[in-house]
Amino acid sequence: MKNLKIGTIASHSALNILSGAKAEGITSVLYCKADRESFYRQWNVADEIITLDSYAELFDLDTSEVIMIPHGSFVAYLPIDRLVKSDIKLFGSKKLLEWESDRKLKDQLMKTAKLPVPKEFDSWEDVDRPVIIKYYGAEGGKGYFVAQNRDEIKQKADFSRKFSIQEYIVGTKVYVTFFQSYLYERTELFGADIRYETDIDAKLRFTADPTFTIVGNIPVVLRESLLIPYQKMAENFVAAAESLLNERIPGPFCLESIIDRNLNIYVFEFSGRIVAGTNVMIPSSPYSYIFHGEHMWMGRRIAREIKQANERGLLEELIS
Amino acid sequence: MKNLKIGTIASHSALNILSGAKAEGITSVLYCKADRESFYRQWNVADEIITLDSYAELFDLDTSEVIMIPHGSFVAYLPIDRLVKSDIKLFGSKKLLEWESDRKLKDQLMKTAKLPVPKEFDSWEDVDRPVIIKYYGAEGGKGYFVAQNRDEIKQKADFSRKFSIQEYIVGTKVYVTFFQSYLYERTELFGADIRYETDIDAKLRFTADPTFTIVGNIPVVLRESLLIPYQKMAENFVAAAESLLNERIPGPFCLESIIDRNLNIYVFEFSGRIVAGTNVMIPSSPYSYIFHGEHMWMGRRIAREIKQANERGLLEELIS
Amino acid sequence: MKNLKIGTIASHSALNILSGAKAEGITSVLYCKADRESFYRQWNVADEIITLDSYAELFDLDTSEVIMIPHGSFVAYLPIDRLVKSDIKLFGSKKLLEWESDRKLKDQLMKTAKLPVPKEFDSWEDVDRPVIIKYYGAEGGKGYFVAQNRDEIKQKADFSRKFSIQEYIVGTKVYVTFFQSYLYERTELFGADIRYETDIDAKLRFTADPTFTIVGNIPVVLRESLLIPYQKMAENFVAAAESLLNERIPGPFCLESIIDRNLNIYVFEFSGRIVAGTNVMIPSSPYSYIFHGEHMWMGRRIAREIKQANERGLLEELIS
Repeated sequence: MKNLKIGTIASHSALNILSGAKAEGITSVLYCKADRESFYRQWNVADEIITLDSYAELFDLDTSEVIMIPHGSFVAYLPIDRLVKSDIKLFGSKKLLEWESDRKLKDQLMKTAKLPVPKEFDSWEDVDRPVIIKYYGAEGGKGYFVAQNRDEIKQKADFSRKFSIQEYIVGTKVYVTFFQSYLYERTELFGADIRYETDIDAKLRFTADPTFTIVGNIPVVLRESLLIPYQKMAENFVAAAESLLNERIPGPFCLESIIDRNLNIYVFEFSGRIVAGTNVMIPSSPYSYIFHGEHMWMGRRIAREIKQANERGLLEELIS
Repeated sequence: MKNLKIGTIASHSALNILSGAKAEGITSVLYCKADRESFYRQWNVADEIITLDSYAELFDLDTSEVIMIPHGSFVAYLPIDRLVKSDIKLFGSKKLLEWESDRKLKDQLMKTAKLPVPKEFDSWEDVDRPVIIKYYGAEGGKGYFVAQNRDEIKQKADFSRKFSIQEYIVGTKVYVTFFQSYLYERTELFGADIRYETDIDAKLRFTADPTFTIVGNIPVVLRESLLIPYQKMAENFVAAAESLLNERIPGPFCLESIIDRNLNIYVFEFSGRIVAGTNVMIPSSPYSYIFHGEHMWMGRRIAREIKQANERGLLEELIS
Repeated sequence: MKNLKIGTIASHSALNILSGAKAEGITSVLYCKADRESFYRQWNVADEIITLDSYAELFDLDTSEVIMIPHGSFVAYLPIDRLVKSDIKLFGSKKLLEWESDRKLKDQLMKTAKLPVPKEFDSWEDVDRPVIIKYYGAEGGKGYFVAQNRDEIKQKADFSRKFSIQEYIVGTKVYVTFFQSYLYERTELFGADIRYETDIDAKLRFTADPTFTIVGNIPVVLRESLLIPYQKMAENFVAAAESLLNERIPGPFCLESIIDRNLNIYVFEFSGRIVAGTNVMIPSSPYSYIFHGEHMWMGRRIAREIKQANERGLLEELIS
């Protein structure tokens, strides 16, 4: 592509993505609702801002020169089935986003990758330990709740909605982000973060039913010996995804994990795209700095892969 | 000014301020108690260190070439009424510091700016929900306490001291710092931090009455969608301050906020000067790095604004 | 030395150390178990990787050109008594590592340095307040437990193992790292971190006996006024160590402290070598950036001291 642009939607990690494009000298375009335009304009990181009334308008625009970078809000605003069928050129695998958004496909991928997942219960009546209830389509942790036993589920759950029931592992959560590079044929460990959640992370609470709504992220590094199993899991994840989806999965992904008191690691979710946790890693995480020997945040890493792929005529292989 | 110097008092964020002056090539002077001199000398960031027995001596020194940068300890050591009347040249608004230090004026400013403040109770007898009691003049969170109801206030409060009674919002606290630039006519979102407080943040406590004494700060980033209401609040704050104080308020300020489980944001305090939380943002926060495209910490941002204002002959407008 | 190399063992803070050597242009060598080789090779920070079946093989290798950098796993894998007698050239003091690994010598050093240590109980029967029980040789916080009183000790302790009994100070923990430079004749305050521990830092726990197993580290800055007592303690520590050990203690060390609600600081441990907490300070901590005016992480600081000492013919004085 000659007039290559990087594009994204004005939310989630747009500042991260756009500033990365700028650092690598790639023209960028931001698709933005009118009420956010003045905010994003001030940051001066997008070469072009296109105002939309609805993100669905994106399907009708000419985006043939734009490599779109999907993020968490992207998937929330653009129906995945329309996205898959659309002409929008996505950096990464559309199929992976589709699998991520479907609980059953997601579980299948995690199990195929032999990730150590917490036990899933098909029915609340089988529950014999603390569990976490996740309503389908709940966003940003909102609406999740923890139940210590069957009685608590019965009492608290909204049975008119669909939800998954996952064993609640007691331990410390760590979100570890990787970048899958096909140009360099490697799975790069990029950084780790912790979520800052309301009101579970309140200094004081006076109720027994905390919520887990994400408000931000905090940087963390892992014990170096723990990096090794995470690297292995990430490589297994890539291999399983390529095999099940029958296509490449270039770009960022995140293993969302919990480490129990015996240092057992459980992966309870994955994200098949950039996560907001990488926003703490600007201009770099300790790991990305060591790996690249210069400041490297996820938006920049994405832009660099795209730029180099384009120079070598390999861009087609990284988009879907 | 020809022989411009940046000066501050040896505490709080002095290393931040001085290293910023150095990075921008401005001569700096540190006013220091004798027992701290050797500590600060080792850092090699002040061009000149002037030893004082008492900070009040500052009022008698010739500081006509010095732009003084106020910080939290500044206000604690130099009586605000003397500071306002003195010849000391302050970067920023002296009036804003005065309003910040007076509970009633502070509330008036926050309400004029339409910041979503927690409910204030005039009398403890009106309290009908958890509240936080803040003794006037308490420093660094020391002496604050939370009471769940009237009985607890009655039991714990020292009624011989003056205190404010504020609704206690259950949620996660975030301290968001901005830089008001008149050269660029904008309110720059600079960074966010969390406070690390003893003993509320102890891993274990065996008592029911935690203290909230600040010992340090931890970096955090916010969900990008939350940045937009913070930006709006900051701009409203600037407009309200300019209108009420009838002068400009150049430089850093901080909105001290709490986000409840429904993602409602409450602003419970503001600081009209640099906060110690910006010390985590050296050499940059994710936001300041994106905004400026290079390492930018608050001390450097201040020094740069002063330098550029001086070059353009606009310095007078930024000092009071 | 003409063909100077920096070497370490593949764990703990090896990426930190190796990337520091690379940044300073010093050849590096990594001693690695076979199952970790592919992981470390991907990072591309070691000039040479030597695979070992057992770390004890290190004693038989020719390491005459290698300055070895000890870290936490180093001490865990290589018996300290063999290390002391070996020809391995260590950056820093072997004796300090020996004293660190012996509970009684460690206490003696901390007391000689007049560090404000929590009370130690010789017998569990003397306990009259909350205490922390630390089994000898326990690694990474694993196996520590807190007891509120004698009954809890009796109930929980494994009396067949040796353990120390230390007063449990309620407060916030801070790990403050220094670098002792003999070239510059100063004790550099380098950075601070907090430990992230499972399962005490779990968002929810359903048991009353948390564990304190370290999984990672989080960055923190201290109130600037608190830096001064820490600096003083660090300098006292260096002086006491030099006097008791009768040799220099070049390089990194860490004061592991807790700050109670009255801002009293207690030092409950020290580490006489690089700690994993410095991994959060890549490419720099706020303090190391101010001090050096450029990105400076601990691995780089070590490499720079070695390089400059070698250039000046002073290297012999920094190794043992």
